[in-house]
Amino acid sequence: MKCLIIAAGRGERLKQKGIPKPLVPILGIPLIARVIHTAVRAGVDDFLVVTGYEGERIRSYLTSLADELGIRITCVKNSDWRRGNGWSVLRAADLLKDPFLLLMADHLVDERTLERLKREKPEKDGVKLVVDRRVHHPLIDLRDAMKVRLDGDRVLQVGKDLKDYDAIDTGIFLGTPALFEAIRESIMAGKGDTLSDGIQVLAGKGKVTAVEMGDDFWIDVDDVFGLQRAERALLNRLRKSTDGPVSKALNRPLSLRLTRQLIRYQVTPSQITLVSFLLSLMASCLFLVCRPWALVAGGILAQVASIVDGCDGEVARLTFRESESGKWLDAVLDRYADGLLIAGMTLYTLCAGGTKGVLAAGFLALVGSFVVSYTADKYDAMMKDKIVSNRFRIGRDVRIFILFLGAVFLVPAWSLWALAVLMNLEALRRIFVATRKT
Amino acid sequence: MKCLIIAAGRGERLKQKGIPKPLVPILGIPLIARVIHTAVRAGVDDFLVVTGYEGERIRSYLTSLADELGIRITCVKNSDWRRGNGWSVLRAADLLKDPFLLLMADHLVDERTLERLKREKPEKDGVKLVVDRRVHHPLIDLRDAMKVRLDGDRVLQVGKDLKDYDAIDTGIFLGTPALFEAIRESIMAGKGDTLSDGIQVLAGKGKVTAVEMGDDFWIDVDDVFGLQRAERALLNRLRKSTDGPVSKALNRPLSLRLTRQLIRYQVTPSQITLVSFLLSLMASCLFLVCRPWALVAGGILAQVASIVDGCDGEVARLTFRESESGKWLDAVLDRYADGLLIAGMTLYTLCAGGTKGVLAAGFLALVGSFVVSYTADKYDAMMKDKIVSNRFRIGRDVRIFILFLGAVFLVPAWSLWALAVLMNLEALRRIFVATRKT
Repeated sequence: MKCLIIAAGRGERLKQKGIPKPLVPILGIPLIARVIHTAVRAGVDDFLVVTGYEGERIRSYLTSLADELGIRITCVKNSDWRRGNGWSVLRAADLLKDPFLLLMADHLVDERTLERLKREKPEKDGVKLVVDRRVHHPLIDLRDAMKVRLDGDRVLQVGKDLKDYDAIDTGIFLGTPALFEAIRESIMAGKGDTLSDGIQVLAGKGKVTAVEMGDDFWIDVDDVFGLQRAERALLNRLRKSTDGPVSKALNRPLSLRLTRQLIRYQVTPSQITLVSFLLSLMASCLFLVCRPWALVAGGILAQVASIVDGCDGEVARLTFRESESGKWLDAVLDRYADGLLIAGMTLYTLCAGGTKGVLAAGFLALVGSFVVSYTADKYDAMMKDKIVSNRFRIGRDVRIFILFLGAVFLVPAWSLWALAVLMNLEALRRIFVATRKT
Repeated sequence: MKCLIIAAGRGERLKQKGIPKPLVPILGIPLIARVIHTAVRAGVDDFLVVTGYEGERIRSYLTSLADELGIRITCVKNSDWRRGNGWSVLRAADLLKDPFLLLMADHLVDERTLERLKREKPEKDGVKLVVDRRVHHPLIDLRDAMKVRLDGDRVLQVGKDLKDYDAIDTGIFLGTPALFEAIRESIMAGKGDTLSDGIQVLAGKGKVTAVEMGDDFWIDVDDVFGLQRAERALLNRLRKSTDGPVSKALNRPLSLRLTRQLIRYQVTPSQITLVSFLLSLMASCLFLVCRPWALVAGGILAQVASIVDGCDGEVARLTFRESESGKWLDAVLDRYADGLLIAGMTLYTLCAGGTKGVLAAGFLALVGSFVVSYTADKYDAMMKDKIVSNRFRIGRDVRIFILFLGAVFLVPAWSLWALAVLMNLEALRRIFVATRKT
């Protein structure tokens, strides 16, 4: 399925140092590139982009993006870009004979929305429009939004000034050639020359079907405030439902701020993975110094490493650079870091006059931590549907935080015993859950 | 696709305490149940079994097997079982209008063969016959085997007394109703009343196509010697190409013998998993006794546990009781056992007067071992195609054997250092391999 993207307008309200709107970077990636990346993830590899204002610059950017992603991007010029955006859509009429996705260069969308929309079957002479019922959602600017009045999934009316409406037009369409016909009809009848005018004509004939957006993400980036809002929204999307308590309260908020800066300086995810590991390595070396100040310093460093550890995945996801091998390296180095930190703290405790009992604590903490990590992966592969409760998320964030507390309060033995008990209880719980129903 | 199984004959040469041949157990499971289990794994769930000699007993067994496996088994009586087995095949003629699998109750087969055969498309008026080109294979009794002469994949002739032949008839067919017609024709023309006679009639018309068996497993169990040969073959199939060097040379040969006994006493796979873990736990407790005799005893016990650890999977595979949760539990308890053994040996060494340096060895051995296990699983999920070489298989068998050697020769510190070096080198090699091409 081809994807048509409208990128011809001037975008008056989002002027940034003379960069045309589709190329305005948002967290390091131009708006239009975010839209294209997302569509590629949803399985699209053939794009038509209608350019107008600053078209040459956009076309040259898209040429290199197409090379980079190994996809096809055909640019279509619309020198009439000062007129309504219906004219831009019409430029593609000769190239689109089958159903196609229709997106706006300045509407960031969710890969899941596009995946669902691609699976829809449009009526031959109609279009499908994704609508958002969350009309009071903070990401929606109601003054500027295109409203939609619905009867079931039938679109009755669209317009910015509707008083009585049920949902918001998200600018995400599954179009057919009938759309071109409708825009032409609207222009001929003097009803207006925008895409919405064409949609209104089709809606009048009962040919526009609404597709629910549900809880998916989208945002219309219209001005500088919208840009800031979108950046915050993109960052907040990186919080995971699987984040543990320490991650939720401490690590994630800090790592998100850090990620914003790291993207600015174009640091790569694997560089971040390595730096986080080196920080942990330094922390465990500090433990071996066997002085209280070094213990405290090591504990702080370990916690910093744990925060930085969140950034590699965040940067990767924000810049569409997630990779299996990146996740793999991160996970494996985390296991090494865990082991070295626990071993280091055990040796500190022993050297600082602890009894040999702390060795048992150290070894048990290490074994328990590893089994918890090991089963987390084994869960994913085999036992996913067997996890009943996610209430107790005792993962790496909790583990490192316990080490941090033990270090800064100079009670490393307590940390080790706490880890030994917690991690092994969690491991036993998992063994119990996983084998219960067999 | 339905599966027809011929189980009507008397099986004179395999009399065992009055048990009819299809019910003679081989490693705990009756012959016909092995055939049915295998076909179920290949995706069949609707069986027709033609019974004759001792039919009542076989039917009652199959009724409970069908319940147990949640499949359909329809029994068809053939009171003419003293005549050629063509009559048995004909009994199913009214029930089979589409292509069907045709198997013998006394031919153990390979799930992969059936999966491939099911995907073949038979000619409407022909049959497909799986043939084995390994005519000198030790599992094939040439005096008794049905030989096949081929021209490409066209079967020219079948018969026990062929002098000039290219392959062996494995008794595995993809049949069509044309087979019934051919058997009738052979009987009418006085050419014989066996399945082979019918196949010969079809072969004469160029309607029998050969399907290559390749390297798959199969065995025709005809007499007591055949039964013993089959038991050995089934056990030997359990050796894995991924077995490490210690496993190949020591653990597997011993665990296979043990498995044979365990099956006799109906021990379940999860019981074996638990016993192996408890043996490891006892071994690590012995280490803590801090006496040389206990170190030696613990080392021997750990190695025994490592051997027993092979049996759970073997018993499970031999008795068609493999399960994801069983493998999961085995893997997780192995990680615990590894950790406890290394920790125990480290504490022994320290208590027996070792320097604190051995603590570093112990922790490094533990971390390295865990990362190797962790990456082995992560490899499976993500990196499988990236492993270039399988020459160095440094897995659990090697790990426990090193601990065993260190214990019985009273040099535990050497063991720990050896593990620390080997396991971390292997972990680093994997990190290198996995990230090289990114």
